[in-house]
Amino acid sequence: MNRLLARELIASFLKEDIGTGDLSTELIFGSRLRGKGVFLAKDDGIVCGTEVIDIAYSLFPADYSITLLKKDGEAVKKGENIAVVEGNVQTLLSAERVVLNLMQLMSGIATAGRKLVEALDDDTIKIVDTRKTHPGLRLFEKYAVTQGGCFNHRFALYDGVMLKDNHIAFAGGITNAVAMVKSGLGHTVKIEVETETAEQVKEAVEAGADIIMFDNFKPEEIKELVSLVPKNIITEASGGIGLHNIADFRGCGVNVISVGSITNGAKPLDISFNSTEGIKK
Amino acid sequence: MNRLLARELIASFLKEDIGTGDLSTELIFGSRLRGKGVFLAKDDGIVCGTEVIDIAYSLFPADYSITLLKKDGEAVKKGENIAVVEGNVQTLLSAERVVLNLMQLMSGIATAGRKLVEALDDDTIKIVDTRKTHPGLRLFEKYAVTQGGCFNHRFALYDGVMLKDNHIAFAGGITNAVAMVKSGLGHTVKIEVETETAEQVKEAVEAGADIIMFDNFKPEEIKELVSLVPKNIITEASGGIGLHNIADFRGCGVNVISVGSITNGAKPLDISFNSTEGIKK
Amino acid sequence: MNRLLARELIASFLKEDIGTGDLSTELIFGSRLRGKGVFLAKDDGIVCGTEVIDIAYSLFPADYSITLLKKDGEAVKKGENIAVVEGNVQTLLSAERVVLNLMQLMSGIATAGRKLVEALDDDTIKIVDTRKTHPGLRLFEKYAVTQGGCFNHRFALYDGVMLKDNHIAFAGGITNAVAMVKSGLGHTVKIEVETETAEQVKEAVEAGADIIMFDNFKPEEIKELVSLVPKNIITEASGGIGLHNIADFRGCGVNVISVGSITNGAKPLDISFNSTEGIKK
Amino acid sequence: MNRLLARELIASFLKEDIGTGDLSTELIFGSRLRGKGVFLAKDDGIVCGTEVIDIAYSLFPADYSITLLKKDGEAVKKGENIAVVEGNVQTLLSAERVVLNLMQLMSGIATAGRKLVEALDDDTIKIVDTRKTHPGLRLFEKYAVTQGGCFNHRFALYDGVMLKDNHIAFAGGITNAVAMVKSGLGHTVKIEVETETAEQVKEAVEAGADIIMFDNFKPEEIKELVSLVPKNIITEASGGIGLHNIADFRGCGVNVISVGSITNGAKPLDISFNSTEGIKK
Amino acid sequence: MNRLLARELIASFLKEDIGTGDLSTELIFGSRLRGKGVFLAKDDGIVCGTEVIDIAYSLFPADYSITLLKKDGEAVKKGENIAVVEGNVQTLLSAERVVLNLMQLMSGIATAGRKLVEALDDDTIKIVDTRKTHPGLRLFEKYAVTQGGCFNHRFALYDGVMLKDNHIAFAGGITNAVAMVKSGLGHTVKIEVETETAEQVKEAVEAGADIIMFDNFKPEEIKELVSLVPKNIITEASGGIGLHNIADFRGCGVNVISVGSITNGAKPLDISFNSTEGIKK
Amino acid sequence: MNRLLARELIASFLKEDIGTGDLSTELIFGSRLRGKGVFLAKDDGIVCGTEVIDIAYSLFPADYSITLLKKDGEAVKKGENIAVVEGNVQTLLSAERVVLNLMQLMSGIATAGRKLVEALDDDTIKIVDTRKTHPGLRLFEKYAVTQGGCFNHRFALYDGVMLKDNHIAFAGGITNAVAMVKSGLGHTVKIEVETETAEQVKEAVEAGADIIMFDNFKPEEIKELVSLVPKNIITEASGGIGLHNIADFRGCGVNVISVGSITNGAKPLDISFNSTEGIKK
Repeated sequence: MNRLLARELIASFLKEDIGTGDLSTELIFGSRLRGKGVFLAKDDGIVCGTEVIDIAYSLFPADYSITLLKKDGEAVKKGENIAVVEGNVQTLLSAERVVLNLMQLMSGIATAGRKLVEALDDDTIKIVDTRKTHPGLRLFEKYAVTQGGCFNHRFALYDGVMLKDNHIAFAGGITNAVAMVKSGLGHTVKIEVETETAEQVKEAVEAGADIIMFDNFKPEEIKELVSLVPKNIITEASGGIGLHNIADFRGCGVNVISVGSITNGAKPLDISFNSTEGIKK
Repeated sequence: MNRLLARELIASFLKEDIGTGDLSTELIFGSRLRGKGVFLAKDDGIVCGTEVIDIAYSLFPADYSITLLKKDGEAVKKGENIAVVEGNVQTLLSAERVVLNLMQLMSGIATAGRKLVEALDDDTIKIVDTRKTHPGLRLFEKYAVTQGGCFNHRFALYDGVMLKDNHIAFAGGITNAVAMVKSGLGHTVKIEVETETAEQVKEAVEAGADIIMFDNFKPEEIKELVSLVPKNIITEASGGIGLHNIADFRGCGVNVISVGSITNGAKPLDISFNSTEGIKK
Repeated sequence: MNRLLARELIASFLKEDIGTGDLSTELIFGSRLRGKGVFLAKDDGIVCGTEVIDIAYSLFPADYSITLLKKDGEAVKKGENIAVVEGNVQTLLSAERVVLNLMQLMSGIATAGRKLVEALDDDTIKIVDTRKTHPGLRLFEKYAVTQGGCFNHRFALYDGVMLKDNHIAFAGGITNAVAMVKSGLGHTVKIEVETETAEQVKEAVEAGADIIMFDNFKPEEIKELVSLVPKNIITEASGGIGLHNIADFRGCGVNVISVGSITNGAKPLDISFNSTEGIKK
Repeated sequence: MNRLLARELIASFLKEDIGTGDLSTELIFGSRLRGKGVFLAKDDGIVCGTEVIDIAYSLFPADYSITLLKKDGEAVKKGENIAVVEGNVQTLLSAERVVLNLMQLMSGIATAGRKLVEALDDDTIKIVDTRKTHPGLRLFEKYAVTQGGCFNHRFALYDGVMLKDNHIAFAGGITNAVAMVKSGLGHTVKIEVETETAEQVKEAVEAGADIIMFDNFKPEEIKELVSLVPKNIITEASGGIGLHNIADFRGCGVNVISVGSITNGAKPLDISFNSTEGIKK
Repeated sequence: MNRLLARELIASFLKEDIGTGDLSTELIFGSRLRGKGVFLAKDDGIVCGTEVIDIAYSLFPADYSITLLKKDGEAVKKGENIAVVEGNVQTLLSAERVVLNLMQLMSGIATAGRKLVEALDDDTIKIVDTRKTHPGLRLFEKYAVTQGGCFNHRFALYDGVMLKDNHIAFAGGITNAVAMVKSGLGHTVKIEVETETAEQVKEAVEAGADIIMFDNFKPEEIKELVSLVPKNIITEASGGIGLHNIADFRGCGVNVISVGSITNGAKPLDISFNSTEGIKK
Repeated sequence: MNRLLARELIASFLKEDIGTGDLSTELIFGSRLRGKGVFLAKDDGIVCGTEVIDIAYSLFPADYSITLLKKDGEAVKKGENIAVVEGNVQTLLSAERVVLNLMQLMSGIATAGRKLVEALDDDTIKIVDTRKTHPGLRLFEKYAVTQGGCFNHRFALYDGVMLKDNHIAFAGGITNAVAMVKSGLGHTVKIEVETETAEQVKEAVEAGADIIMFDNFKPEEIKELVSLVPKNIITEASGGIGLHNIADFRGCGVNVISVGSITNGAKPLDISFNSTEGIKK
């Protein structure tokens, strides 16, 4: 995760919430008061986003210290502390909600990813995310995916080619579509082709696709399709796969399964911030 | 929803996804090609965010038209079209994912809100949101809340005072905390006080709170607490209330119930974009 | 005052004045030279904006120290020092004009506010500002208002409802206008209604306004109108009130008097920066 | 005035005031309603900033029309209309305060400039502004100065050299200071030297200054100093000159008089916006 | 080329050059004057960047028309017109230098690329660029590369892995380095390995590199190395290759040759803007 | 060079190259690893841009140290080190390309400038740059010009008037054009007039130009033209002058020669970054 970019985004999130000033905090607490607090898990899950605390606090002028008790990707139990922090009370309280909102989201995604990995229980298959992320938060969400033991699909429209039904239909078939793309594309970008029939899978192999996606097939169908594809081409299962059915894909032979629900609708992990000292008189 | 601000945010979302260019679309479709498509509900729910389509397309140079078949706040059934659009093919496809991600989120929130309203089934109580929103998306999420028939709590830290346990403890009680705030606060901002005992409720009334929140009380306890509060002070129930238990609060007498899960973890409404003409050769 | 936002604004002000470089200072002084100076009042008034010095200097790389001799809200006499500073000479000189322009503005507003408070000489009435501020500077100006002993009206269009003649006329009267607003507004936002007749005052009371503004009434008229309004509704006098006539409103019974001229046309307090050491060879 | 830059600044001003939404206007008026209004002078003065209306409205999506009855730099009498406008009601009302705040400021500066020109009543002397402007508003204020019949001094630190006492003292005299600057400065930038004695004036002439400022001299002293300066060097009187005493400088022989109070503390011209049609039902 | 991003960048370039205003143009030409002009090649080359004219003009308020006589990627002879334009005179003149600076740069790169393609004269090898671009201009420069008939290497650090000597040395060899990367990398990103010996080439093949770069080898050495690499792995020659020696690599068997000098130090194509009508009285 | 502005620009350059993350570096090197390296000249030239290293590293969180062995403006030989650096390995490697691209550009410009100064070999003539810079990089390029011993022409359109053929033709001659400009221009801005005939030179003198440019004249013609211009008016030769012919202008009598090729097409100075310790295991 590029910290330069993360810092800029977190600054904008703090401005969204604090705006012209945190009325309650500014009117109650002096500007130089110091205190302590903990970030505490209120449910079991995988921790993610601990760096958010540091980045958020670093945007305020006063000194602070953060002791991490859990690292990103580590499991946490309900009631366990994730981090102990010390700093300016106004900073701790004014940044609290933004930090929690982001850590809860990221930890929820990491937790969802871990559950998928455990449910699939097949080391030969990587579970990957999609572009179904919250607008403006992809940097954080794609990072959280990796902390849950899953992997990233292309980040965006600029770093990978995905030829879908629209592209294929307009180009007049997979062969044409891949050829059109290859005539203009650099050698470092992979071309993925969505396929909906065995015929299309064969055409994609011939056309020179780097990745072939089997869209909305059943596990047993996928096993047969995989046999049509040489080993140096990556195979991906996609479409309607989630925690409820991913175990059915165990051993189906693909290299990759993409799951929109890792990021799209993952339940946030409940985390709270409790002040422990100094904030209370 | 301030369209000026929405436009700026949606431009940043499009930059997140398109970045230096939509490789697949640019390499397949000519820059002047035109086509049509529909935004289609794939589940039942409340539509929200239709203006996002218009704002997103307006950021690209070519002309376009949008025919809305559903308005924000209107119910949609699985399989029904929400909007029919016509425009530059590159625009339609490059903006597709961002528009869908945002409309799905907003419609999911509106749908969650509507379900809460129906489950509560008590016109004397307003259901309101919290600050548990996705960082950077509060403008859209707070708007979506209103389209589901719910209402907005304070938008952020700058437009309302909320005195929580930390503030109260540090100030040395509710009376002191309210007095400290009143001595510096303008007359247009309301002061809300979180209470955890009947004693605190009484103290908040005496102190001149504008809104008194009953934090983590049971419905039957709330009925009694409400009787301690004069009519010109607003009462709010909060803490652990969601779709699973909101019906228990029917008739409890508060003016407002706040529910974090409207925005925090609401299931996105499944919406897809299907091209209908021109995009396919 | 949210320092995060203040910092961003002050950075933009420094870019306005320094742009591609401070030609005079860069060509005369070495980049590592250090010096001292004082910020000095050249007129009597109330100091405001001392934090601007710190924020401005913090945007440059070198170390510095600031010793504040006057705090925000404190009275200063002509010839007294406000702050003694030490730092990189290029920083001191390149930031000088921006710091002075902003401190003079803020101190001028604080001074104007203090004069109004003294002229009114009625502790039962809060003097508040308006939205007649310099575009882009509201954060600083609203803060300065509070340092002069006055209070803030709503900050902007997003944090308070004010129903003026236009809204009332279009809605078909105060009763309708308030009802329209209440049907969509959250419970934390107050509704203020502008009234021009005793009839309207009565209608506003009935409609459930939180604040009733008496627009352009004489003090003696206001005394009568106040008697029509229950104690839990805030009353505000407005329209053409300034230093020349505010004393006439002493004892008129309203809770609040709003005065546009605190921010709109307040005379800047004359402050200068004098180098004392190191800058001169 | 660079409209590209003006547009960006005015967008930020509108965001300051509208933020997440204009609650009152959005809740009362439909989003497609149209209306008319006038910008009306409530005092005599010089109009300036009419383009602000156009730029502000152009940032909103709906069509509008503006009929200017007064141009920038033209005199207006109390009660006269400046512009008649027609457009979306939400746009007219949400932009009203920002447009007025900026036009009042600009017209106030133009008016102050015109008064100075009339008071001086000497065509051989140009009245110029200083860098004592409101942070972030210099583009608008420097333009307003020209519409009142005055001229701009250097815009900022980057487009002119001004050698003040600090620079001169550190460099060890005017001769050295000018030489240091000339050794690094491009040929398109003028060098101005502040002088406090006749000796310094002579030294500045010898050193090759392009502009010599007589700082805090009386008119009769200036007449003698001017005689020391060749015609191809520009002379400027500065320091404590304003409307109260500028007439004393008539015929003093300088080319330029700089006046901080044109921008620093100029009284805003009172302008109001009145709806005339459509907004009222 | 993402036009959304290009527009934002070109706006910032115009602000760099116009800043607070184009003094010469504003003082001579009225704001509503219209005129015509041509963009004219003053040397032979490949045209690139014609869309820049449209984007730049679209940032100003007035209407304009552009007739392109040459398209991007098309050859132009000295003296030929590239585009005929009509519009507001202030727009034409204020945008002139920025448009020319960018088109000259882009056309220079396209021209350099075309020359490389012609000099190599080997259709089996793609010539690609590097990250040696002008900071802030990569979007435009990478696009220009493609218009000269060359291709893009990875765009930046985020869309491709390149394991160089540092990475390999720290990881303890190519095998380890590739394994480390694969354990965390998504399936859509290619891994390129820089090799300096035949041993390293073999190790890279075994490790599963997607692309193998032969760094600083002679053409005859490359022929042998290529034979060590299976067909499904892409081979790239790099290091010190330019127009002076690229012909030596004809038939060397690699898939790709990367050339820093396409973007790094390419001679701008001389283009001028001549007014033809209306601008002159 | 304004460091505030430079910092903002360099941050945007780093975002261009690092984007969502430096995949190679993040996957190989731990986030707390430290290492050393050198910036090394690979060709002879003039060093420029050493401050870029400091600004770039300062944008990342970890500590670092930089020992400069060459200062801006100093000559460097092929193989000599320019700076020795120590810091976080991810910072050193992720910032490497941006720092090199910018330093190479700046050093290339400084080197080109120095060569022009040496070729001209005439202390009475200043060599100056033009506005032919890379969009977005003018701050750095104009600074580099000065480090090579040359000087800056006007920075942009806002800080100098240049009356070219278009302006003159439209105004109806030089006399009119200068008069039009003078009637609106402040006294600190110089007016330069482009001339193409001896008649125009005489007219420009009469009109009161501050600078007269002789456009596209031969050195011997310039000698005669110079004699027509009084000493207090600056003379400038321009048009097609570069390293190949600047020596011909030695002794031609002008004050200034402007050369577009200092910035436009200057060959970057080859500089590399070599890790020396810690980065390799």
